[in-house]
Amino acid sequence: MRMYDVIEKKKHGLELSRDEIFEMIKLYTADEIPDYQMSSLMMAIYFKGMTDREIYDLTEAMMLSGDTVDLSAFGDASVDKHSTGGVGDKTTLIVAPIVAACGGIVAKMSGRGLGHTGGTVDKLESFPGFRTSLTPDEFAAQVGRCSLAVIGQSADLAPADKKLYALRDVTATVDSIPLISSSIMSKKLAAGTKSIVLDVKCGRGSFMKTPADAKKLAETMVKIGKAHGRRTAAVITNMDLPLGHAIGNALEVCEAIEVLNGGGPSDLKTVCLTLASLMVEFSCKIPSNEAKARVNDALISGKAFEKFCEWIRQQGGDDAYARDTSLFGKAKYFCDILSDRDGYILSCDAEKIGLAAMTLGAGRATKDSVIDPRAGVILLKKPSDEVKRGDVIARLFTEKKDTFDAARDQIISALEFTDTAPEKPTLIHEIIV
Amino acid sequence: MRMYDVIEKKKHGLELSRDEIFEMIKLYTADEIPDYQMSSLMMAIYFKGMTDREIYDLTEAMMLSGDTVDLSAFGDASVDKHSTGGVGDKTTLIVAPIVAACGGIVAKMSGRGLGHTGGTVDKLESFPGFRTSLTPDEFAAQVGRCSLAVIGQSADLAPADKKLYALRDVTATVDSIPLISSSIMSKKLAAGTKSIVLDVKCGRGSFMKTPADAKKLAETMVKIGKAHGRRTAAVITNMDLPLGHAIGNALEVCEAIEVLNGGGPSDLKTVCLTLASLMVEFSCKIPSNEAKARVNDALISGKAFEKFCEWIRQQGGDDAYARDTSLFGKAKYFCDILSDRDGYILSCDAEKIGLAAMTLGAGRATKDSVIDPRAGVILLKKPSDEVKRGDVIARLFTEKKDTFDAARDQIISALEFTDTAPEKPTLIHEIIV
Repeated sequence: MRMYDVIEKKKHGLELSRDEIFEMIKLYTADEIPDYQMSSLMMAIYFKGMTDREIYDLTEAMMLSGDTVDLSAFGDASVDKHSTGGVGDKTTLIVAPIVAACGGIVAKMSGRGLGHTGGTVDKLESFPGFRTSLTPDEFAAQVGRCSLAVIGQSADLAPADKKLYALRDVTATVDSIPLISSSIMSKKLAAGTKSIVLDVKCGRGSFMKTPADAKKLAETMVKIGKAHGRRTAAVITNMDLPLGHAIGNALEVCEAIEVLNGGGPSDLKTVCLTLASLMVEFSCKIPSNEAKARVNDALISGKAFEKFCEWIRQQGGDDAYARDTSLFGKAKYFCDILSDRDGYILSCDAEKIGLAAMTLGAGRATKDSVIDPRAGVILLKKPSDEVKRGDVIARLFTEKKDTFDAARDQIISALEFTDTAPEKPTLIHEIIV
Repeated sequence: MRMYDVIEKKKHGLELSRDEIFEMIKLYTADEIPDYQMSSLMMAIYFKGMTDREIYDLTEAMMLSGDTVDLSAFGDASVDKHSTGGVGDKTTLIVAPIVAACGGIVAKMSGRGLGHTGGTVDKLESFPGFRTSLTPDEFAAQVGRCSLAVIGQSADLAPADKKLYALRDVTATVDSIPLISSSIMSKKLAAGTKSIVLDVKCGRGSFMKTPADAKKLAETMVKIGKAHGRRTAAVITNMDLPLGHAIGNALEVCEAIEVLNGGGPSDLKTVCLTLASLMVEFSCKIPSNEAKARVNDALISGKAFEKFCEWIRQQGGDDAYARDTSLFGKAKYFCDILSDRDGYILSCDAEKIGLAAMTLGAGRATKDSVIDPRAGVILLKKPSDEVKRGDVIARLFTEKKDTFDAARDQIISALEFTDTAPEKPTLIHEIIV
């Protein structure tokens, strides 16, 4: 295989062979293909796409480029959930203990946040002592003990994807469905669970801007999962606006705990119940209706919250914080954004709200940024909500007072108002099974 | 300027600003933009193209990335000729002395051959002692003395193009009209002549496979030249088949001398007279008809051949070789390819013939390959020629006997036969002025 020929072939829209794809990924991972050839190929793929067969092969080649996790001790029951990344997305914190409380087995590797979307690992680290780095043995033991473990992704998992993603990130070749789907699925397949439930975000706060693109991505990933023998489903959810009210690590943990205690914002709750039901259906091998009933029961009975506390405790965290969220403390400074008019919120750009939270200290601008767990935004008014002049639309929290002006401008530019009551935004566009 | 944003913009088909293009070329030349970002942009340009304005700016930015030659001592008379590269293309050896004999001023920098197309510098070096590396002062002195100098291209001319071309060459982004035209014209503009005549090759032995593409390239280059205040014209010539009969360095020199002595293949002669007439028209500022007459006279009177000998001598070469071409000697081995049938030659793939010559030792597979001046092919039969069983179609020359089998296969696979007399191939598709 000559990399030049591979680029030339793809440039003309031809299908790459399985051998070409495997050889290329092997050589690239071994630093034997230079970045400048790979980035040129990535751009050709952006324009010319890949066939399903090519996508399967690329996914498999990246999956096999490093370690794969062996979860065979848990039979067919292990299930993973993955979100393509959104603003205010704390669903894992809620969904994982619900599923474990229902008898499912959740074994999950999760990423850190970068840019305007937060990472589950960062949120969990709000609990003093919580360990997100476990050895493979500790991970398996934690799953066995608690039916639930969430850890940071190992560097040895799909290293080809890690290298390729870093390259795509600086060469404007991220937003390609074949490349996104193979990147996500190579990690999910390597992580070893028998079932996978995907939360594909759609809208201004995510990579997929339209329901049609999100559907294409979801279908592609579901096909890849199935082709590799995993039960796979995808829920396409709205990310034009943030999910729930809280954006920022400890703030989101508190909101997740509200949901686990039976309260919380209804949009967040609905998305979580949908995801959890699919996971229980797959993990426990029970019909959909039964899974939904079991999920509701876990929430109402308090079992899900108890599982959450057990999980935090057994992974080394202090679950007193879960029982009394005031222990998280508050950021040193806060300020409110008030409405200067009567009317309704028409829209609320999730990406801009995420960037505002980052400005306040809740996110990372670069891989090495230190995040402030208490910083962030509580969005009290969301699209379709009525507002009166003087109402608090959002409350901002930070440790660095001088960030308020910029964050306030970002929030205000994210909001559109209207005089007549708008329709409630669609929450779940579609479920692909 | 962030290179990421430039890639993203071009990926979406938007026009880059003049500042973006100049800044990018400056930073890339200074190794401050990595190759992997530039190759990704080159592929985006391959797919999305560039506007005329972007092409002018890119050309100018690359031209200004290094030295520019000052030929103002020669007023408006300096003229350059450039071929986009073909098999058996020895036109510079013929055209340059004709133009100088007609009173024009030819100041030319030329490339070495790579792959299946030969370079003028390599051909000139067949003359013992001929110096293709002159200092800028020596170059100007040679032009002043002889009205004619051809030297190898200085590394300081358009270094941005040099770096970018090397990258495009390994990332399958060579065949893009905006990139080819800006690459060629940045060097031609930096080389400083007031007029430029382009020979745009079209067909299987060249980058542009169709007359439509060749026309687009020709028009783009002519527009760039004019936009920078140079008289510019382009002749689109057929490169489905080799030009003339000889392919290989000393073999081509001998064929060029035949033409200068009033003989030689008629296709080669016609192309040379067309190019030379345009150059004389521009350099001597005389009408087209007068230029044609002067060119014919230079050839018939022997003045062009005398100018050739003077040129070789004054650039340090031994012009006895021009007067007696048997001094070049013959390659150690030769073999003939005979026709095994009666009929006509229908076509003769120039690229394959070029590759056969390379196999025999006449070309370079890599930049560091050493070429053998006496190796090559004499193609005795060409498209539309009648052949009888047993006729010699081609004669192969080499110093390495074991190359014959492979070269013979390449020649045979290049030829198509037919039973009925085919039309003569079009030689000159169009002239763009």
